[in-house]
Amino acid sequence: MGYTDVDKLAINTIRLLAVDATFKSNSGHPGAPMGMAPVAHVLFNKIMNYNPKNSKWINRDRFVLSNGHGCMLQYALLHLCGYKLSMDDLKAFRTLDSVTPGHPEAHDTDGIEVTTGPLGQGFSNAVGLAIAQHHASAEFNRPGFELFNHYTYTFLGDGCMMEGVASEAASLAGHLQLGNLIAIYDDNHISIDGDTNCAFTEDVVKRFEAYGWHTEIVEDGDHDLEAMEAAIKKCQAVKDKPSLIKLRTTIGFGSKMQGTGGVHGSPLKADDIKQVKIKFGFDPEKTFVVPQEVYDLYHKRGAEGAAKEQEWEQLLAKYSQTYKAEAADLKRRLTGDLPEGWEKNLPTYSPSDAAVATRKLSETVLTKIHQAIPELVGGSADLTSSNLTRWKDAVDFQPPSLGIGDWSGRYIRYGVREHAMGAIMNGLAAYGTVIPYGGTFLNFVSYAAGAVRLSALSHVRVIWVATHDSIGLGEDGPTHQPIETLAHFRALPNCMVWRPADGNETSAAYYVALTAKHTPSIIALSRQNLPHLENSTIGKAIKGGYVVSEAEKADITLVSTGSEVGICVDAAKYLKEKHNLTARVVSIPCFEVFDTQSKEYRLSVLPDGIPSLSVEVMSTMGWERYTHEQFGLNRFGASGAYKDVYKKFEFTPEGITKRAIATIDFYKGVPNLRSPINRAFQQLI
Amino acid sequence: MGYTDVDKLAINTIRLLAVDATFKSNSGHPGAPMGMAPVAHVLFNKIMNYNPKNSKWINRDRFVLSNGHGCMLQYALLHLCGYKLSMDDLKAFRTLDSVTPGHPEAHDTDGIEVTTGPLGQGFSNAVGLAIAQHHASAEFNRPGFELFNHYTYTFLGDGCMMEGVASEAASLAGHLQLGNLIAIYDDNHISIDGDTNCAFTEDVVKRFEAYGWHTEIVEDGDHDLEAMEAAIKKCQAVKDKPSLIKLRTTIGFGSKMQGTGGVHGSPLKADDIKQVKIKFGFDPEKTFVVPQEVYDLYHKRGAEGAAKEQEWEQLLAKYSQTYKAEAADLKRRLTGDLPEGWEKNLPTYSPSDAAVATRKLSETVLTKIHQAIPELVGGSADLTSSNLTRWKDAVDFQPPSLGIGDWSGRYIRYGVREHAMGAIMNGLAAYGTVIPYGGTFLNFVSYAAGAVRLSALSHVRVIWVATHDSIGLGEDGPTHQPIETLAHFRALPNCMVWRPADGNETSAAYYVALTAKHTPSIIALSRQNLPHLENSTIGKAIKGGYVVSEAEKADITLVSTGSEVGICVDAAKYLKEKHNLTARVVSIPCFEVFDTQSKEYRLSVLPDGIPSLSVEVMSTMGWERYTHEQFGLNRFGASGAYKDVYKKFEFTPEGITKRAIATIDFYKGVPNLRSPINRAFQQLI
Ligand SMILES: [Ca+2]
Ligand SMILES: [Ca+2]
Repeated sequence: MGYTDVDKLAINTIRLLAVDATFKSNSGHPGAPMGMAPVAHVLFNKIMNYNPKNSKWINRDRFVLSNGHGCMLQYALLHLCGYKLSMDDLKAFRTLDSVTPGHPEAHDTDGIEVTTGPLGQGFSNAVGLAIAQHHASAEFNRPGFELFNHYTYTFLGDGCMMEGVASEAASLAGHLQLGNLIAIYDDNHISIDGDTNCAFTEDVVKRFEAYGWHTEIVEDGDHDLEAMEAAIKKCQAVKDKPSLIKLRTTIGFGSKMQGTGGVHGSPLKADDIKQVKIKFGFDPEKTFVVPQEVYDLYHKRGAEGAAKEQEWEQLLAKYSQTYKAEAADLKRRLTGDLPEGWEKNLPTYSPSDAAVATRKLSETVLTKIHQAIPELVGGSADLTSSNLTRWKDAVDFQPPSLGIGDWSGRYIRYGVREHAMGAIMNGLAAYGTVIPYGGTFLNFVSYAAGAVRLSALSHVRVIWVATHDSIGLGEDGPTHQPIETLAHFRALPNCMVWRPADGNETSAAYYVALTAKHTPSIIALSRQNLPHLENSTIGKAIKGGYVVSEAEKADITLVSTGSEVGICVDAAKYLKEKHNLTARVVSIPCFEVFDTQSKEYRLSVLPDGIPSLSVEVMSTMGWERYTHEQFGLNRFGASGAYKDVYKKFEFTPEGITKRAIATIDFYKGVPNLRSPINRAFQQLI
Repeated sequence: MGYTDVDKLAINTIRLLAVDATFKSNSGHPGAPMGMAPVAHVLFNKIMNYNPKNSKWINRDRFVLSNGHGCMLQYALLHLCGYKLSMDDLKAFRTLDSVTPGHPEAHDTDGIEVTTGPLGQGFSNAVGLAIAQHHASAEFNRPGFELFNHYTYTFLGDGCMMEGVASEAASLAGHLQLGNLIAIYDDNHISIDGDTNCAFTEDVVKRFEAYGWHTEIVEDGDHDLEAMEAAIKKCQAVKDKPSLIKLRTTIGFGSKMQGTGGVHGSPLKADDIKQVKIKFGFDPEKTFVVPQEVYDLYHKRGAEGAAKEQEWEQLLAKYSQTYKAEAADLKRRLTGDLPEGWEKNLPTYSPSDAAVATRKLSETVLTKIHQAIPELVGGSADLTSSNLTRWKDAVDFQPPSLGIGDWSGRYIRYGVREHAMGAIMNGLAAYGTVIPYGGTFLNFVSYAAGAVRLSALSHVRVIWVATHDSIGLGEDGPTHQPIETLAHFRALPNCMVWRPADGNETSAAYYVALTAKHTPSIIALSRQNLPHLENSTIGKAIKGGYVVSEAEKADITLVSTGSEVGICVDAAKYLKEKHNLTARVVSIPCFEVFDTQSKEYRLSVLPDGIPSLSVEVMSTMGWERYTHEQFGLNRFGASGAYKDVYKKFEFTPEGITKRAIATIDFYKGVPNLRSPINRAFQQLI
């Protein structure tokens, strides 16, 4: 404790950096930084351990600004601490190609743990970080070697508090008794629509207690630094519950408009800035001022953190002597590389193997690889027996006190919380020691769209095991049958959507998903059994698309994915037998990966001169890039036995044949028919 | 009160109908119907008012089965009551084209209020129904004329309880003090992954109290019918809070597997069925048995409901004499038709009018039409000042006790709860007396994807006012800039995605959205100002696509939407001036509506013989259906002033020109170039 005028000066410095930066960019949110500067100062000066010179130190305390619109707070802190964020970067706030974008982006800016801004996400990421640490502690700590013992802190405002994803994550965090997680709720009574009284009058503290959290209340978040520090320390001492501190603050503290919505999302006016600078004892004519004693204070703290890391590195060195294998495993994990030879465990199949649902083939992959890849941590949103995401002898990740698992467990029971699962997986992936996968029905990945988008944007390796991937799920009916889902996520940049057709393709999907360090994957898997294809191999399938069945002088190319590839193979036979027409068959299990192949290769798969027809039992949107004509389902499905549903919509050899003939006829007169692979110009990437 | 053996018989009849139907279809969920049959029986026999012969009676009690997988419970009840659901329909459970699909679908089945199954949605729909009733009461009830005084009941299980959307809706319901809403929570300690102890250990009752709900607990939900009835009646008496009854039940009651996950999602085994029938005193050799006294009991209740409706109709007749205008308004609303001449209020514009953001033009539409369409009820997910969704003198929908609005208010402060807003709007639209619209940023409509999908599937008129619709939002950056969003919702069947380019197109979007009784709409609107187009009219724009600028012997057609249409017009000038190339310009503000036009019309807009280039600052996915080449953004955006961002990605006359020339060159040698409007065959609809 023991706060002096320098602390006050530092707090006001942070506030004014936010004021100046938002004014200069004529855009942004000064209110939250001005209100939360005191607690941020306490946290970064008296509580958190970090080394600004190595933002990747694995035992650093994690900090997540869930109310990411307040990012000038975080940028100011990172600058003061000495991270790679200069005064010029602050001045470039919200300008093109700066490292200080409008909301914090982890892959752009040193010291940002996760990409936040979409409300509720950062808090849920923090739950993921806290889970990852509990898990890493159980895996790597040894008596006398507490390699992992840090905390995860997160700030959140009313917006995050109202979002369902945060509620889901909070409930799970309470269940999991994540004692290393401390959330600080900026209770400023203001959201964009004005006083929270207009929409948000619940008792937040009581709600979190209901979830099983420890709670603290600090009444004067504007001034009472001692109370803030004391509350945080009390929370640190509670080891078997996550903690929430409700901190009463004044949004836009110091502004003439403080405590109102007027300071939330727009820069302060010039005269207001003038008065606030005078009030804080700063020169009203100067901007972007950092008094040297403030730099000194923060650099001192940074140096202490660097020393702590040094100590830790020595501990790790000692650990490495006693626990060689564990240390090597940890160091390897931190590179993001998988253990050498792991891929030899991937199962391969031949056409004589029995037909199996790809969800079951996925289970086989997980069963075969989980020992080779110890960082693989799975789970399901309460659909384990349907998603088949759990290898048989998996240990559940649970607080030991429940008696149904322990912290070293590698299987997370997410409950019916798809959105939180997605956001938590983003936190798990960001942590550095685990690769998360999670199961639900493909249709319900949409519930987590907000989180999936951030997986893609922030370049994290997260894997969705998305079973029951089409009308092929049958009786559950249209409420559960995805139509638009693949198109949705195929349209999302940096997101691999896989829809394997058989065993080898399923292995290929996992191979690419696991080795793509900076891209999330959604693996869409069938409920129904599928035959193994004649020509599939892992090597071919990892190209994203390949020829399943080649033919000389073909009349048509049938192009498909997943459960429809086998039907296309049958349709090709039917076309030959009944109509003496020759069809090639192509499988494109992943657009995103196929698109990265050379044009020459892509044209070998989808050649000029042959009309092509795509076949996929869902929205045809996006297929026009690959095929001339599209057979799909641009309507909702139906409830019934899956074979009846396929028949109703004519996804049968006969139904495909009908459309193949129409396609052949339609392109008969066209000279030099070009493959859609040929484009007039390249897309921006 | 006063329950007899007939009640017990009725309860077991319901249980066995669920057992027989799931066994026959070899699919479905017997556990929830067997566990909840007692409370369902109490509710449908002693509590709820409904007329099975007129499922649309507006003052009926509403019932929503949020745990929709238990739909055999509801189908059995509807059959017993005498709705249009025969014994043959029960036997056709989960078979193709039956009215008894795998999850309840409102537009398929008489007596189903809303489409449920995706967890958390039904509960949130029920909040919408309860809001709609509070609103209708305030609008139409008069002293001595309580036209609206029913309740909304909803059942939900652990799955719904865990979903964030339900948490959001529950928080808002508590804030709004919805005294007419009674939720019954099936606390059976089982979810698909087994004991809820593995993921869901929070104190649900305490959580709902924190939201401001009244709560009751019934310990023996398997037998204690009196306690259930008493709890429901206590909840009815609480007028200023929604109520939750936690009901301890045994999932699969009567089965040998009762109380376990084994009865959740699979039919009972034959021998188990035998023993449960014997236990319940039924003939084990018979299936689908309804004792006559059970029919009698339910038909008696149905007749009482019919009599209540008669009384109500008389009340309405009397009301119609005193309150002519109100009665006429109510009757009209129930037809779904808008007031005659309302569309005369839609603003029109000419090119000389000042450039305005389409979000602002949307505000003008709402301002001009809200008096003509009294059923229009708006709101925003805490972005009112950004979405511009509130006309100036709007009254907020609020409990009067808060002093900031009243029940007649037509503007709902949803809070930062996009997903609940979507699901609540589905309930509002299903109610019958209001047409809901709600605002958020386009990017965050994705948070509500689960609800939007159900709007489309269940054919409800819901309007999303989705502002900040592209990288044109500028500084907020990639976390807020939609790339995949339009593709996502364009791929969703029965969902209109509008992206108007100017004032007349904005009016057209509202015209079609408001008159499409059975289709939801998403209206994507710009943050930045846009010029009014030379050739736009409401009449043209309501066709979904039209020629903005025609030209003889054109070299290319530029096809665009929203903020890029004006840039295409400039690009056409640039092409002419700098390259002596002639470009036509086409606007397609809504794919879904354009697709319904005649082929002749569509070919007149996108003719054969002219290469075409689409221009839209987001994913190009889907544009291949309309144009030969696509200029878009298949990557994430950037944070910066919007003009800088547009320039970075070359969405300028120069950037478009470059690609237009590439397109013209690419198709130069192609004889008889066909418009993409020509297809080899029709899609299934
Ligand atoms: Ca706030
Ligand atoms: Ca349950």
